[in-house]
Amino acid sequence: MTTTSFSPQGNSVPLPSCFLQLKERITNHTAQVAVVGLGYVGLPFAVEKAKVGFPVLGIEQNPKRADRVNQADNYIADVDDAELKVLVEAGKIQAFTGFDRIIDADVVVICVPTPLTKNLTPDLSYIESVTTAIAHRLRPGQLISLESTTYPGTTDDVMRPILEDSSGLKQGRDFFLSHSPERVDPGNKRYTTKNTNKVVGASDSLSLEIATLFYQQTIDHVVPVSSAKAAELVKIFENTFRAVNIALVNELALLCDRIDINVWEVLDAANTKPFGIMPFYPGPGVGGHCIPIDPHYLEWKAKEVNFNTRFIALAGEINRRMPSFVRSKAFRVLNQLGIAPSRSQILVIGVTYKKDLADWRESPALAVMEALLHDQVTLRYHDPYVPSLHIDGHWLESVELTDDAIGSADLVIITTEHSSVDFSRVLHQAKAILDTRGATRHLSDPDHKVTLL
Amino acid sequence: MTTTSFSPQGNSVPLPSCFLQLKERITNHTAQVAVVGLGYVGLPFAVEKAKVGFPVLGIEQNPKRADRVNQADNYIADVDDAELKVLVEAGKIQAFTGFDRIIDADVVVICVPTPLTKNLTPDLSYIESVTTAIAHRLRPGQLISLESTTYPGTTDDVMRPILEDSSGLKQGRDFFLSHSPERVDPGNKRYTTKNTNKVVGASDSLSLEIATLFYQQTIDHVVPVSSAKAAELVKIFENTFRAVNIALVNELALLCDRIDINVWEVLDAANTKPFGIMPFYPGPGVGGHCIPIDPHYLEWKAKEVNFNTRFIALAGEINRRMPSFVRSKAFRVLNQLGIAPSRSQILVIGVTYKKDLADWRESPALAVMEALLHDQVTLRYHDPYVPSLHIDGHWLESVELTDDAIGSADLVIITTEHSSVDFSRVLHQAKAILDTRGATRHLSDPDHKVTLL
Repeated sequence: MTTTSFSPQGNSVPLPSCFLQLKERITNHTAQVAVVGLGYVGLPFAVEKAKVGFPVLGIEQNPKRADRVNQADNYIADVDDAELKVLVEAGKIQAFTGFDRIIDADVVVICVPTPLTKNLTPDLSYIESVTTAIAHRLRPGQLISLESTTYPGTTDDVMRPILEDSSGLKQGRDFFLSHSPERVDPGNKRYTTKNTNKVVGASDSLSLEIATLFYQQTIDHVVPVSSAKAAELVKIFENTFRAVNIALVNELALLCDRIDINVWEVLDAANTKPFGIMPFYPGPGVGGHCIPIDPHYLEWKAKEVNFNTRFIALAGEINRRMPSFVRSKAFRVLNQLGIAPSRSQILVIGVTYKKDLADWRESPALAVMEALLHDQVTLRYHDPYVPSLHIDGHWLESVELTDDAIGSADLVIITTEHSSVDFSRVLHQAKAILDTRGATRHLSDPDHKVTLL
Repeated sequence: MTTTSFSPQGNSVPLPSCFLQLKERITNHTAQVAVVGLGYVGLPFAVEKAKVGFPVLGIEQNPKRADRVNQADNYIADVDDAELKVLVEAGKIQAFTGFDRIIDADVVVICVPTPLTKNLTPDLSYIESVTTAIAHRLRPGQLISLESTTYPGTTDDVMRPILEDSSGLKQGRDFFLSHSPERVDPGNKRYTTKNTNKVVGASDSLSLEIATLFYQQTIDHVVPVSSAKAAELVKIFENTFRAVNIALVNELALLCDRIDINVWEVLDAANTKPFGIMPFYPGPGVGGHCIPIDPHYLEWKAKEVNFNTRFIALAGEINRRMPSFVRSKAFRVLNQLGIAPSRSQILVIGVTYKKDLADWRESPALAVMEALLHDQVTLRYHDPYVPSLHIDGHWLESVELTDDAIGSADLVIITTEHSSVDFSRVLHQAKAILDTRGATRHLSDPDHKVTLL
């Protein structure tokens, strides 16, 4: 049997036997899958793969997390407790803190963080150290796929040299390398790992073919693109689109504040247009691990070719300015009440970056709170998902949302609109509210207690 | 019978009798409706109103257009020829060039252009002259509604004083004034005047009530907002959203050009994400009467409060720069072929601003063509909707898209992707193509003839 690749040029080249073996192991779901990083991307992915039969080994440098996985003690909201338990007990998922078992893996999927430095430049240290650890153990016939969001060129220009140089193996012949950006939307019940179309890119045709086949085993629709850098750019563009549109409505909110128009009314009305519009709303800023970060990876990379990604720069600037706008608006509300901020009690409701999620990374509520603490405001907060917080030298504990907690505050600032909070009750009990999320905008407010962002 | 208004404060005030009479005439469809400006907004609106029984008089300063309406000779693609004929023959629609008959109107709807000056400042001359003409004839019980897109404050701060000062009548008591921005999307078969939700704003409760009632007679869903300026801002925001998102993907195209990534592949892949994304594509710039214009109305107004609408400024700058980018990319393609632009023949396909529409106002294709003519390119164009063009001192006539016309050009530039053009045939016949619309991006191109924007 002569097997040839599907190279678009149509020229037939004999396929490496390691490729054919890997293809078979993927097709019959016997390939050993390693997932590096068992966070909100890696753990759901590991579960999806194990569910269809793949033996999965997880590599997680945090020993507490690795232990919890091995005890089937789920810590990711998008993972089903019972599913994880069944898979762990069946030995289908095992977690390790070190990389030794990588040698057994046919496919290695990397789901590690790609944060920013304080100066908004990419921090690829996780990707680099993981790639180096893999490179030392690389063997023919392995597929390495990066899921972390990063700038175009990371897979080809950063990972590939590390993998090839220390192993002596060659991509596209001995091993395979792809980028397939995660599109996890934490808390999204409708679109999960399985039914969210997945983009895959690689810079040689065998890597693209094998990676596409691998993802097709558990994902309904896989979208191959012609290069790893195109796949990298797809993901950054998706989050840039969101960052820019959030900044656009934040800028609109800043303008509406000046010309005395209710920005929420404008946006709600604009969103009744049945075509050509997509709803975005202003807020106290952006948070989480994607929107405030990913675009700056592209901004940094573009400077190499003397290109200023001006929309990214502008969006970042406006979104990062919002907490300070919230603080100044809080001052104006207090001023109308005749209270100096340093003599005021403020209750902040919601500190996570997104509603109904236990994630306060990069949350703009923290920036608002930090500013208010700096202004010597007496600050309390309520968040059902965040029992305690350390902000700028202060330890704060979430308070219960009692009538007294609401009513004793001079001002309530709504920074996250968790579904568990009864905003109608908050409106009834509060003396004054600064609502940065529009959570109360459809409620009756006869006493004009609410100031909307 | 005591009739009172629905003022949100709940205080009962006796309603003016002229209001009650107007309400009755609107409800039983006997109100005389005047539509000022019988263009792509006014004429479809006139037809919708006449279809449900309202007698409609159109006021159109262009005598040729007024004559054509009176002869039931339709000139607006979104209007049905037969429907217009029936209504004109039944005397339900009559057109005039002067304002004398305004005295007979119960409702006056203004659909006149709001262009920009060359310096990107608002040109309200049409609104002002129409409002003045109406003011001289204003009588108690009339509703005046502005549909033209304009900056927040036009209805209240420009129109109201003109109407009140010369008539001595008072808004909200003697006459009624509202803003209801048109949302016409020319060529949209699915969303027409009738089934596109319509926003209405007014700054007194009686004007809002009567205007809402008037629009409800022919429109499925009317969305009242609390002020005319909020309604004005809604419309500008809708088009700002589009202008900014087009500019964002145009900036992405400029970057992709530098880092050698196919922007169309990136966007097509990004648009497979089933949530959180909305498709926009790059192109040779923006055109028409909305996207390049409306946002600058807001930009201008915002300067009054020392506010820079930076997204609008940036979007305008990037979108207006695209024709020059197309020209420089055309030069690069010609350079690869070893042909000096001044010795080249270029065929431009499509000059309207939007596909399948006969409208070349502000079309970016014209800017591209003007630049190429300036470079002494031998230029021809094909557009089924535009038989001839006058550009910068040159008269051009659309050529037939024969094999010879395509094959004799050194370069074909696709600037509008009309459905009537067989791009597969163009690709087959052409020597080289610069495709600014991605019209050929899914076609097989074995000879690498196509350069995508």
